[in-house]
Amino acid sequence: MSIDVLQEKIRKFKNPVMVGLDPYLPILPQHIVQDAFAEHGQSLQAASTAYERFCTELIDALKNIVPAVKLQSACFEALGADGIAVMQRVSKYAKEQGLYVLIDSMRGDVGPVAEIYAQAMFGEVPIGQSLHKLYECDALTVNGYLGSDGIKPFLPYCKREGKNIFMLLKTSNKSSREVQDLLSGDRVVYTAMADLVMRWSSDLYGKNGYSEIGAVVGATYPQTLKLLREKYDRLFFLVPGYGTQGGTAKNVQFAFDRFGHGAIITASRSIICAWQKEGSDGTDYLSYAVDAAEKMKKDIAKHVVIL
Amino acid sequence: MSIDVLQEKIRKFKNPVMVGLDPYLPILPQHIVQDAFAEHGQSLQAASTAYERFCTELIDALKNIVPAVKLQSACFEALGADGIAVMQRVSKYAKEQGLYVLIDSMRGDVGPVAEIYAQAMFGEVPIGQSLHKLYECDALTVNGYLGSDGIKPFLPYCKREGKNIFMLLKTSNKSSREVQDLLSGDRVVYTAMADLVMRWSSDLYGKNGYSEIGAVVGATYPQTLKLLREKYDRLFFLVPGYGTQGGTAKNVQFAFDRFGHGAIITASRSIICAWQKEGSDGTDYLSYAVDAAEKMKKDIAKHVVIL
Repeated sequence: MSIDVLQEKIRKFKNPVMVGLDPYLPILPQHIVQDAFAEHGQSLQAASTAYERFCTELIDALKNIVPAVKLQSACFEALGADGIAVMQRVSKYAKEQGLYVLIDSMRGDVGPVAEIYAQAMFGEVPIGQSLHKLYECDALTVNGYLGSDGIKPFLPYCKREGKNIFMLLKTSNKSSREVQDLLSGDRVVYTAMADLVMRWSSDLYGKNGYSEIGAVVGATYPQTLKLLREKYDRLFFLVPGYGTQGGTAKNVQFAFDRFGHGAIITASRSIICAWQKEGSDGTDYLSYAVDAAEKMKKDIAKHVVIL
Repeated sequence: MSIDVLQEKIRKFKNPVMVGLDPYLPILPQHIVQDAFAEHGQSLQAASTAYERFCTELIDALKNIVPAVKLQSACFEALGADGIAVMQRVSKYAKEQGLYVLIDSMRGDVGPVAEIYAQAMFGEVPIGQSLHKLYECDALTVNGYLGSDGIKPFLPYCKREGKNIFMLLKTSNKSSREVQDLLSGDRVVYTAMADLVMRWSSDLYGKNGYSEIGAVVGATYPQTLKLLREKYDRLFFLVPGYGTQGGTAKNVQFAFDRFGHGAIITASRSIICAWQKEGSDGTDYLSYAVDAAEKMKKDIAKHVVIL
């Protein structure tokens, strides 16, 4: 269900882009940081306030251009409890604004611990007779190194509650080859991981034919994207590595099927830090972000037509 | 440095056991839950209060028996911001009580995001001119599926600040074979991962000969423990899967070198939930935990002599 929702949002916007919200003080415009310091001193609360303003302003500016956002969990976690409170609120705000929300935490626990985590992220936390919803989260990134025991706890949420998980197959970083490209028989580790995803997907296909369990494949490896697209025609791809990391619109075309479906491209710094590259003082960071998002949409549209 | 500290603590207690603090409402003694509900209602705050009492009481009860504790991050994360605040406080309390503290989050990010995470967990978070320490954390579990880019951000903390990371090699769960046991040439994926750890370890050996980068190998695979112990004589093993998951004292003997060094065995539910098995009402859960920890120490001592 949810993978259909994501695809429909992409079609509506004609834009297969997910903006990564990775707040971090050194990349925030100075006026946001200074306002927060003036109110709360140089505290974790100040930083959290600044992150919240930065993320919600970006959501407001981008919500009519992009269908989805990705919250980088580690950035919020790095402010401790204050940061987590902001991640909870930002996820809810993004959802209220109509966006598909992915929380990028790349977790990989197993057994009861993974069940507890899945429930907290996707469901409601039971306390006595009451239920508490922490996040509004459509999807999570998950590390499958531990095998099925780490994935199964998420599947009921994918099946019944319209949630998605995206398994790490081939990540965009340079050293991803060290483990992910190891050859095993006629497969490499990341295709073995893809085969596992297919096994878990058996009763989890959306109306558009794609599995509710997607796969992370980096824009920096276009040949891999192409091979995986051909072999795994029912895996929806989440594609990081565009922009700052070197992935281009030409690269990412291979992630899509012939209808221009089946993939979404993430971009973080190239959009949310666009003002830094241009030498602005940051007060107009939102218009830089909008311009960068529009440009990315146009660049991809040169290579991918979304029917 | 830190791996020496851990080994010395183990020698001092003659006990290679790390107790896992995995708080979760259904496993908490009823009196702790009821007291918290009475004070805060059926809220996230109540659950957090209960977790904090449970963990600090266990720390007080066990600090003269075991050298180390492991905080299960997902359990705390599942209470959102309130839970994270408690994890921060519990880590500090455990450290004050002289314990070696591992936070078990099995994260695996890369690049700037991993740097932000490593700094938050091991260092201090800079906000303006001020520095903020979130955790007292000697060690983290790390998932190396993304390769060196995910590990390098932690190495300066291992080298200069006496911190350790433990890489997932062969985890204790049943389905760990699906990815970790894939054969690649004359290696399997988990030995390829071990080879990477050795590469990263080149200038990171403690005085006891062990690397500051340890390895997670499950108690449920004794033959694997034996083979890895023989082949990687400089990797310190963190061994989960004892007790509830089926690992025995006989199994885990293979994790140790001939001096009884080089490994620590984790146990969570078999100690912190010992009262449930015995049919107690939970008011005396601490004495059950102490008995279970003492028994585990004795059981291991039958097979491992720590010189």
